[in-house]
Amino acid sequence: MSSIVLIPGRNAYRLAEKLSLTTNTPVINVQRKLFPDGEHYIRIPGTEKIKGSTVIVIETMYPRQNDAFIEILMLLDAVRRLSPRKIVLIVPYLAYSRQDKVFLEGEPITGKIVLETILKYTDHMLVYDIHSLKLIEGKSNVKNLLFFDLMVSKVLEKTRNPVILAPDKGALHRAKFVAEKLGLEYDYLVKHRDRITGEVTMEPKTLDIKDRDVVIVDDIISTGGTIAKATRRVLESGARGVYVAVTHALLINNAIGKLKKAGVEKLYTIDSLGIRHEDSFIEYVDYYGRLWETVLEIVGR
Amino acid sequence: MSSIVLIPGRNAYRLAEKLSLTTNTPVINVQRKLFPDGEHYIRIPGTEKIKGSTVIVIETMYPRQNDAFIEILMLLDAVRRLSPRKIVLIVPYLAYSRQDKVFLEGEPITGKIVLETILKYTDHMLVYDIHSLKLIEGKSNVKNLLFFDLMVSKVLEKTRNPVILAPDKGALHRAKFVAEKLGLEYDYLVKHRDRITGEVTMEPKTLDIKDRDVVIVDDIISTGGTIAKATRRVLESGARGVYVAVTHALLINNAIGKLKKAGVEKLYTIDSLGIRHEDSFIEYVDYYGRLWETVLEIVGR
Repeated sequence: MSSIVLIPGRNAYRLAEKLSLTTNTPVINVQRKLFPDGEHYIRIPGTEKIKGSTVIVIETMYPRQNDAFIEILMLLDAVRRLSPRKIVLIVPYLAYSRQDKVFLEGEPITGKIVLETILKYTDHMLVYDIHSLKLIEGKSNVKNLLFFDLMVSKVLEKTRNPVILAPDKGALHRAKFVAEKLGLEYDYLVKHRDRITGEVTMEPKTLDIKDRDVVIVDDIISTGGTIAKATRRVLESGARGVYVAVTHALLINNAIGKLKKAGVEKLYTIDSLGIRHEDSFIEYVDYYGRLWETVLEIVGR
Repeated sequence: MSSIVLIPGRNAYRLAEKLSLTTNTPVINVQRKLFPDGEHYIRIPGTEKIKGSTVIVIETMYPRQNDAFIEILMLLDAVRRLSPRKIVLIVPYLAYSRQDKVFLEGEPITGKIVLETILKYTDHMLVYDIHSLKLIEGKSNVKNLLFFDLMVSKVLEKTRNPVILAPDKGALHRAKFVAEKLGLEYDYLVKHRDRITGEVTMEPKTLDIKDRDVVIVDDIISTGGTIAKATRRVLESGARGVYVAVTHALLINNAIGKLKKAGVEKLYTIDSLGIRHEDSFIEYVDYYGRLWETVLEIVGR
């Protein structure tokens, strides 16, 4: 096999370092500067190491989504000009993927713009737990990776037979994935609106969760509103303890406080962003071995 | 002819308003918000006005180049989904167009990335005085507009027969354009390095500028270094007065002070950016009539 090198974008230094340590793959650190007018500049040094090699470009799109977008294109374009054997782009968090359809007439589908523009510049793309599977439908060179089994395995150190719950039907594939991997039961929450009082309740579609522990799984926590609400409803339905596993823990504003207050026991996540929250409430689960297996599968092709 | 509407991006409200007033064209104001995590959102209201119409999207890429880049794509994508007759995109200032080739091995050509990505989403594109003509070579749906004759006409109110000078050979097409329009002489500055002292001088290639007024024309002033240096050299060569005409007056840091100190009499520019400098040293020249003529030519096709 030809040699492999890792090239991190500016949000992904830590991710690339971890991956490099796990896999003994060399990292090429990009030269970068900001012009006085605000334009970004990058240059890939050690260009002789790129020619004929497999290049893994890794950049995550939070924070500074729009900067990350153009930097990904710049990195890919620069690498391509150096004649690599193959480019594999890892975008742990793909920004704008919640804008995956026209909700109101007059809107763009920004998730599609971002994804399709990036795909013009790479051979393969790996993304972690994209919000909308529809965005990558039919795109054979994009692979969506889920790490929920790794996160939920940690929950199993605390409680033996939890129910895996998706907060809505659209997230059901996440619950199904982990439940099948680990032999657990799963379900999703359905909203009921009382026709007379207007009161909204959320209940598991089929399972009885009374006196059971629950793991709510989802792709993203931004300000924490959705998961806090789901947690409260699940506890009102008689659940014993609530754990949360999410791929992308943005945790904006006081999301951590909100989740604690709602009654979440602990939050499990992975290192998918350019920021990391240091709080004993949050456990970051190692996933680099799994990621690398997938990279090698792709590289081998 | 079908109806025409103007849609400004967030850097181009003032430009769109001026164009609208000059031409009696209605403006559709985009709904926009910023999500708590930093993602941008836009929506085009009054969607019934778009169907079958010619839509002029106008957005300039300074300041916040990277935000403007994705917003242009969002606007164009949203418009396209509403079935317009034709989309004409006006990008007065195209960011990254100075990154027009690989200067050092390992660099991307960001100007090409930006331009080619945008072109996938529009039918026609107008840009003012692109830094590098090479970027748009062979692209029949991109038109580069120069307004130097309008700016230099203002200089002619002050001095009768100035020499038009490009600061280097790459900018010569600008000097030639205005000189031929207005019947003036033109030339460009050549660097000479003294082989013994190492001292660098800049002199006009062929013309004698002693005791003559000079108009230096260029596409952009960022921090003002290039133009300040050219001005000093031209004055050292015996020129009488130095005027400057540039399309894109970014004027970062203390550029205005630098130009004044170097001896520039006055700076002529146009409204091509999302910012405007209020200073009696700078005159903004009206160009909206000329712009609209070009738009109508394209729309008529």
